[in-house]
This record gives sequence, C-alpha cells and structure tokens, in this order.
Amino acid sequence: MSRIRFALAQLNAVIGDLAGNSETILTAVAEAYARGSRVIVTPEMSITGYPVDDLAGSVDFIVESERAVRDLARVLNERGFGDAVVIVGFLGDAEHVEFGGARARNGLAVLHGGAVIADYAKRHLPTYSVFDEERVFVPGSGSLVLNLGGVATGFLICEDLWREDGPVAELVAKKCDAIVVINASPFDSDKDDSRFPLLLERAAQFGAPVVYVNAVGGQDDLVFDGDSAVVTADGTTILRAPRFERADIDIDIVGTGASTDGIALDEATGTLAPSIALDLDDREAVWNALVLGVRDYVDKNGFPSVTLGLSGGIDSAVCAAIAVDAIGANRVFGVSMPSEFSSDGSQDDAADLATRLGCHYRVEPIAALVAPFIEQLALGGLAAENIQARARGAILMSLSNVHNHLVLTTGNKSEVAVGYCTMYGDTVGGYAPIKDVPKTLVWELARWRNALATSHGETPPIPESSISKPPSAELRPGQVDQDSLPPYDILDAILERIVDRRLSVSETVADGFDRATVEHVAALVARSEWKRRQGAIGPRISRMAFGRERRLPITVRRTTGLG
Amino acid sequence: MSRIRFALAQLNAVIGDLAGNSETILTAVAEAYARGSRVIVTPEMSITGYPVDDLAGSVDFIVESERAVRDLARVLNERGFGDAVVIVGFLGDAEHVEFGGARARNGLAVLHGGAVIADYAKRHLPTYSVFDEERVFVPGSGSLVLNLGGVATGFLICEDLWREDGPVAELVAKKCDAIVVINASPFDSDKDDSRFPLLLERAAQFGAPVVYVNAVGGQDDLVFDGDSAVVTADGTTILRAPRFERADIDIDIVGTGASTDGIALDEATGTLAPSIALDLDDREAVWNALVLGVRDYVDKNGFPSVTLGLSGGIDSAVCAAIAVDAIGANRVFGVSMPSEFSSDGSQDDAADLATRLGCHYRVEPIAALVAPFIEQLALGGLAAENIQARARGAILMSLSNVHNHLVLTTGNKSEVAVGYCTMYGDTVGGYAPIKDVPKTLVWELARWRNALATSHGETPPIPESSISKPPSAELRPGQVDQDSLPPYDILDAILERIVDRRLSVSETVADGFDRATVEHVAALVARSEWKRRQGAIGPRISRMAFGRERRLPITVRRTTGLG
Repeated sequence: MSRIRFALAQLNAVIGDLAGNSETILTAVAEAYARGSRVIVTPEMSITGYPVDDLAGSVDFIVESERAVRDLARVLNERGFGDAVVIVGFLGDAEHVEFGGARARNGLAVLHGGAVIADYAKRHLPTYSVFDEERVFVPGSGSLVLNLGGVATGFLICEDLWREDGPVAELVAKKCDAIVVINASPFDSDKDDSRFPLLLERAAQFGAPVVYVNAVGGQDDLVFDGDSAVVTADGTTILRAPRFERADIDIDIVGTGASTDGIALDEATGTLAPSIALDLDDREAVWNALVLGVRDYVDKNGFPSVTLGLSGGIDSAVCAAIAVDAIGANRVFGVSMPSEFSSDGSQDDAADLATRLGCHYRVEPIAALVAPFIEQLALGGLAAENIQARARGAILMSLSNVHNHLVLTTGNKSEVAVGYCTMYGDTVGGYAPIKDVPKTLVWELARWRNALATSHGETPPIPESSISKPPSAELRPGQVDQDSLPPYDILDAILERIVDRRLSVSETVADGFDRATVEHVAALVARSEWKRRQGAIGPRISRMAFGRERRLPITVRRTTGLG
Repeated sequence: MSRIRFALAQLNAVIGDLAGNSETILTAVAEAYARGSRVIVTPEMSITGYPVDDLAGSVDFIVESERAVRDLARVLNERGFGDAVVIVGFLGDAEHVEFGGARARNGLAVLHGGAVIADYAKRHLPTYSVFDEERVFVPGSGSLVLNLGGVATGFLICEDLWREDGPVAELVAKKCDAIVVINASPFDSDKDDSRFPLLLERAAQFGAPVVYVNAVGGQDDLVFDGDSAVVTADGTTILRAPRFERADIDIDIVGTGASTDGIALDEATGTLAPSIALDLDDREAVWNALVLGVRDYVDKNGFPSVTLGLSGGIDSAVCAAIAVDAIGANRVFGVSMPSEFSSDGSQDDAADLATRLGCHYRVEPIAALVAPFIEQLALGGLAAENIQARARGAILMSLSNVHNHLVLTTGNKSEVAVGYCTMYGDTVGGYAPIKDVPKTLVWELARWRNALATSHGETPPIPESSISKPPSAELRPGQVDQDSLPPYDILDAILERIVDRRLSVSETVADGFDRATVEHVAALVARSEWKRRQGAIGPRISRMAFGRERRLPITVRRTTGLG
C-alpha cells in the first residue's frame, strides 16, 4: 500500500501560446511539488489550449506542440522536478492521415525524468453541440495504465469518460487504483447536473476514485468552468475545486502497490484538509461565466479597455456591470448617446449607472449626426429608426478606433433570436456579453447582482428603474418592445422550446401557447439567421447557444411536401 | 440483355421546400418519361436540399421529409409514372440515436409503383472541408443492388464513391451492370481535376458504367455545379451535362438480364444523340459559379433587387457585372458615394460602369454625412477614414430598408484575408459575391468578361480604367492600397500559400518570399479573424474559402514553447 499526493492543476491556457502555457504548468508543478504532490495533472490540451479547431491542420503547430511537450519535460527535470510525474494535454501527430486530411490527435503525455515516458490519444471524438473533433482529430487506440508509485492509474481524455464502450470498458477490466481524466469541458447552466452523476457512476464502475481535472477560462464563445473534482467508488466527493477560477488542489490517493513499484514516487506526508468548494447559486454561476468570458476575451486579446453604449436600459446596464466585475471600472468607458426620443429617465439612469459603477462616462447626442442622413435620403419609418442605431454604432467604433477599446455589444438572447436589433447599429462590437442570456434572465441577473452588493454592504450597481421600467429601443416616440414582440415571459418560454429544445411549432402550441404567436416567433427566428451569422461572439451559458452550437442554413424555405 | 433508358435529372433544390422540390422532381420525371426514360435519377437530398446542417436535428423535419417521399411516390403513380423507377435523396430517420444526438440519415429512396420499394443510407459521412456529416447523420450499413429491367444497379451517395472501403468494395464484389451515384458535390475551381479521374477509376473497378448525378444551384456559400456524367468501364465519358445550369439528359444502359427481370421496365427505343458538354475555361467556370451563387441567394430568399456601392474601382465593378448577369440590370441598383477624396476618374468610372451595364444608378455624396461625426468626435487619422466607409454602409442599409434591396458587399478574398476593410462600413451587406476571389483573379475575371462581351459584339461591361488604375480605398488624399499592403501579385501568392495551402511562414519563405513580408501578412490574417466572423457569406470557389471551410479561433497567441 502506498499513499501518493496528486495535484489537480485547474489551469487557464491561451490557444497557441506554447511558451506561456508551458510556463503556467511549470509554475503549477513547482508549487504542487513544494506541497508534496508528486503526480501533477493538468487539463486536456493544457499545452495548446482548447479548442484549436482547424489549427489542428497546421503541420508546424503540431510539430511545435510536440516539441513544447519535450522541452517542458526537459525543463521540469532541470528545475529539479524530474522525479515527479506531470500529465499534460497536447496536440500530437497521428501516425496516419485519414481521408479528408485530419492528421492530428488529441493527446495526453506523461512527463517524468526529463522525458515523455508514455502517451495516450483520445478515442471518442465528440462531434456534436460545440464540438468538431472528428473534423480535426484522428482517434487513438488502446488504453493506458501506469503504476505511479504503487497507484495503478488509468488515463482518459474528456469524452472518453462519457461513453461506456472503448477505453472506459477496458479500464474497468484492468482494475485500477485511480482514473485520471483530463478535460476541457465547457460550462453550460445544466452542466453540473450531468457531470457529477457521471463521475459517481463511473467511479463505482471503476471501483476506484476518479480524478477529474478540467480547464478554466474563457476562449472566444466557450467558458471552461473548472469544477475539477475527485469522486470515490463509494460515491463520495472528496475534492471539489472552485469554479470559474484558477485553482491547484491536492489529494492523497492510496495505491495497492508499494511506492517503489512502477515509477517510484515519494509518498505523501502529513494530512490534507478537505477542500470542497460550495455549490454556486445558478445565477451566480451564470454571472461568473459571463464575467470570466469577458475578462479573458479582453485580456487574452490584449485590449486595454472596453466601451459600450449606455441607454439607461437593462441590457446595457447588466453588460456594464459584468465588464466592471471583469476588468475593473477604470477600464470601462460608457457612452450615453441620447436622441430626441430618449426619455429623461433613460438619460438619468445611464448617468446613475456610471456613477454606481465608477466607470468612465461621456454623453454624445446623436441628433446632429442623424439629421443629415434623414434629410439627404428622405428617410422615414424603419429606415429613420435604424439610422439612429447606426449612428450610435459609428460613434462607438470611432471611439474604438481612437482609443483601442474593445466595443461590447449589448443584445440579449431573446433579441438575437428574433432579430430585434439593427444590423451595423446596436449590433456593432467584438464581444457580446449577454448574447446567450434571455431577457427574463437578464432581469434576474440584475436583481441577483444588486442583492449581492447589498449583502456585502456595497452600492447595488444597477439602477432600480433600469430593472423595473418597460423595455424600449427608444427609436420613435413612446415605443416599447412589446409593440413588436410578445411579452418577454411568453417570448422566452416559446424561444426556450423552439430554439433550445428544438421543439416544433405544434409541440410548442401543445404546451399551451397561442399558435399564431408561436408561428410568428418561429418565423422571426428563421428569418434572422443572416443577422446572427454576422453577430459578435459571446459567452455560451446555455445548452443551445447561437453560433458554434446551432448551425442552420440562411436560405431555407419550409414547406411540407405534396400532401 | 436489355437496354433501359436512364435520365440524369440535375436539379436545383431549395432547402426545406419539400413541396417545391417534389414538384420539381415530378416535372422532371414527366418530361423524362415522355423521352422514354424509365429510371430517373435525382441528386443527393433532392427532396430536402443540401446541406441541411442542424435542420437534421429537427424531428418534425425528418418526419415531413419521409412523408414527402411517400407522397411523391403516390403522386407519381397517380400521374401515370408508377411503372418508372425514380431515385431521390432525402432526410431519413435513423433506427437508433447516437451519443450526441444525431438521429438522421442521409438517405436514398427508390420509388416505384406508388411506394418506396427500397432505400439506402450514406455510409461514409464527410467531416472535413465544408462538410459536417458526422455531426448530423448516423451512417448507414449494407449496400443496395436492384435489378432494374435487367440492369443490375448498385447505389451510392456522394462520399461513398470517394472511398474504396465499404460500399464501393461491396458493389465491386457484386458485379453490377451500372452504378448510380447521387451527389451534392460543391464546386471549387479544382473540382473537375479530382472528380473525373475518380469516376474513371471507379468505373474501371466496377467494370460497369457510373451514372453520376450532381445537384446544381447556389445554397448560401456553396455552389453546386452539376457536371453530371456517365463514364464507362473502358474510360469513356459517354455523357456530360452542362455545368451551373439545370439539365435533364438521358442515357441508355445495357443490362445483362432481360427487361422483365427484377423490376420490369420498358426497354429504350430509338437512339440518343451523344450529349457531352464542352469543358469550361477556368475563368468562365468561376464566373458562372459566382453568378449562380448570387442569383440563387437573391431569388431563393425572395429579394426583389440588389444594391451596392460603385466606387469606380475594380471590385465593385466586377460585383455589379456579376449581379447583372445573375438577375438582370433592372434589378441592380448602383450607388456612387463620392467624398472629397474621390477622384473625378473614379466618379466617371462608376457612372460609365452603370451606363455599360444599364443598371440603376444614383449619386449620394457623403461629405454632409461625415462632417458632423468628424466635428463632434474630433476624429482624425484612421477614425476619420473609417467613418467615411461607415457613412457609405449606412446609406446602403438605409436604401435597403426603404426598397428591400439585398445589399451586396464587394470585398475580395485578399482584402478579407488581411482585414483591409472597415467593419460596418464597406463590409455591410447580406451577400459577398467575390469574397473568395483573390484580387489578382478579380482583374483576370474582369478582362475575361470584357473579352467575352467583345467576342459577342457586346459592350464590355467593365470600364478599362477600373481595370488598369492602381487600386485605392480613396479614404485620404493620394491613398493607394500599396501604401498598406504588398503588391497584389506578391500578396496573393503569399496568401495562396498560408491560407489556401496552410503552409507555415518558413515554408512560404522557402518558396522565395521576403520573410518580413510573409510574417506581416500572416499576422494580418491572424488578427482579422474577428472581422471575417462577422462578414457576409459569399460563394465558395476555392479549396479554402473563409467561413465554413476554415474554422479558427479568434483568440490565439502563437508562441513556440520553452525552447
């Protein structure tokens, strides 16, 4: 019997940054080693970041990734950690090229004594939802079990764990002391409901603890939530890392062999205090996902600051609060862009928001910018409404040109779904913090965030009247959203069915909704596909985010045959 | 021995339009039947259109597709064609649901006597390039051979033919008299170089003629070029349909059985004249692809007309000429939007172009629209340049709002690659006719199109000075593109390597290019990914079109490890 300390390094990689990611691993190993850990586990593709998409087709990136792994092994040894075992994920070269050209594999490397002593390639390649792994990877074959200081350890990569066939079945048969799973598993608001039951089920099947290490951080439209954990065969969660943040936590694993069996490792000394992060409230989890998504998009892309329009409405208020939580008020530049149709209340709310947040604030009225267009082109109706939004978009982009701000676009999922937005107007921007958040949830998040502030004795960031007033685009006198759309509680309930759950119109009607309303909403969703294709990316929090997860043709004409 | 007439129906489907597509098939069958054909073959997914992408996840669409096939069989019988055999492609239900949720299959149905008498599901699901079939389909199993009036006929769907294993090997072993392959194979400018050698190789392997029926038409960013053909075992192309147009062509196939064997069919009577379409010049093929892409995007989406900015430059001139060839001059609305930096020559060229094309034309100067932005926001430098492009974008969108025009955006592939464009300015629009055409090819196409006109005794559509003058965005005095970019012949040669062929910087330098230039271009390409994500779709003509075919993260920081 041996007792070996494993470290779960919940890391935040930057795609392509082989040097930076290697340094991050090196630092994590040094700290874990000092805490007595001798097996340090990092997430799936911790060397390259995930998802690399078609970068997997770049031969030089594959070569550089493999070299980076070998270099890391060498440097670890040079720094005195050669007697530890370090598990990394990397982009590897496949031995053969498949039809269609995928030649990379999603690899796991075991580093020890200055070298790569073993590797494994992911066998189940998810090709659904946000994943395209059959496109870019060749599946591996065979399974890997290593004796790490007496701990017979089996290895899996992410999707491998979710299927019972293949490597799971093989490792069950091999009766391991522990199963290490490295992951880059993105957040959605239901993820915990499927992830933990799976860990419990698999640990029982393996008859051994599952050491589950997930990535953390924002990468374009995905947010990795961490939530690394260790679950034992008897169904006990003995370690749970905090979500949405970088974490390094140790756990002692008992092996059936002696610590001198297999790869000899120092035994663990002392006793670890249990580390079980508390479950997050659903709204807190979503908020933290949005904040992390914004922060990492801004910082990984090197933007000094963000700018956004502050209308006085709830969407821009929530986006501004997220931005301030993400990168600090001093890097957030709010712009109020009132028109003749902006109510005094809206302008007061925008100013109040900026004061509460402590962010930068300026006012740029649009009257003088819009009038020449109206006059020269004799615009009225919808065109006269849209030109206001486009003038605002041009203001924000001009400020971005001058100050290098990232422009945040503030549309919510309900609007994006039905196309309630002006292309090249309120849609301008590089990142869309709440594009996957339905309007009703935007309100809920605002209330939750204000309550959190109150409970901490802080000023609630979002003005109450931004939450309570009827939503309006304020593009014509007295306009409210409900002139054009069903009430948001109805709209969101319909959208949840026809978009998120892919129900048909008839199935949605059967749930108790008015047929004409459902058909109207479905038609709006279908005809706005071209707008969504040109929309900014933003953090995914649902199980059916627009963009990478929901891929539909623009040109579609639905009819039902000759009948 | 029997002789049965087969019809190749090269159809243009609209995605989702089960009624319209069924009607199209019905008409094609009626006409082919009158010509004596008794086996009528339509393309892959001729009932639903292709690619349906995530519509394959819509259970009601699957159900409706299967019902449409049965309804079509019934109606064919009612109309007196029940004794013919009709081959259609459809979206079918899979018997089981795979992990991840794909439950559809890419099906082929054989209609006869008012019923579906046999079916087959595609076994090789392409998941590379522009294809995502592993995402949305479950593969079929088994192969299908039917005796059609004495002709032992094997069936394949598109990708099945490209691989030697599985259904191809099984049909080789079964020694058929003919192989029918239904396809939705999109155009790229090298496609013929791979498609015909494959047909020849397979026909020899089968020892039987291959009846290859491809779809035709534009569907978002894909253009199906038709090019249906029949190739015999001895390497003779005995039928070749014209490309880029709807076609129905018959061929008599000799079977080893009697026409009363298997499904009894009337024998062919009379002799068919050979129908071998001439090969197209490469530029003509590309031009026709662009024209078809534009026409089908406009018409399938129900736009009455298009509008675009006419700068006097080559890109907008070529786009306007394509649009006129696609939908006629009366549906094309050109807009000249001169600024103080527009040369007289440019304005003359724009007007000249409109006159040559006979399209609508108006002039909207931007000075009065831009000045208030410059003044209010104190803009200079890049911001002052971009606001001009954005004012133009706002004009076009306003005209679109008023007249329901589709806005065409005129950026070429070289610009799109390096991000030489103003977001929400010259990039506005729903369709981008030349986004996959490098600048040097834009010039070539212009010259080719003018020469074609001359050879027909028509006025060359594109003013000579638009072709010959140095390209300029005309956003500041004396500006030319080559202030910011390498000469286009160099730039395109570099882009062809780093984008189309995925070569590394070093490999490109090894081809004889200056390292600093290559690195600069590679960096521009990488940092413009966010712009391309928000760009309009446009017809793919290359083997590496931006968008569906080249999927890269926006957030990437390339470094090469600890070294």
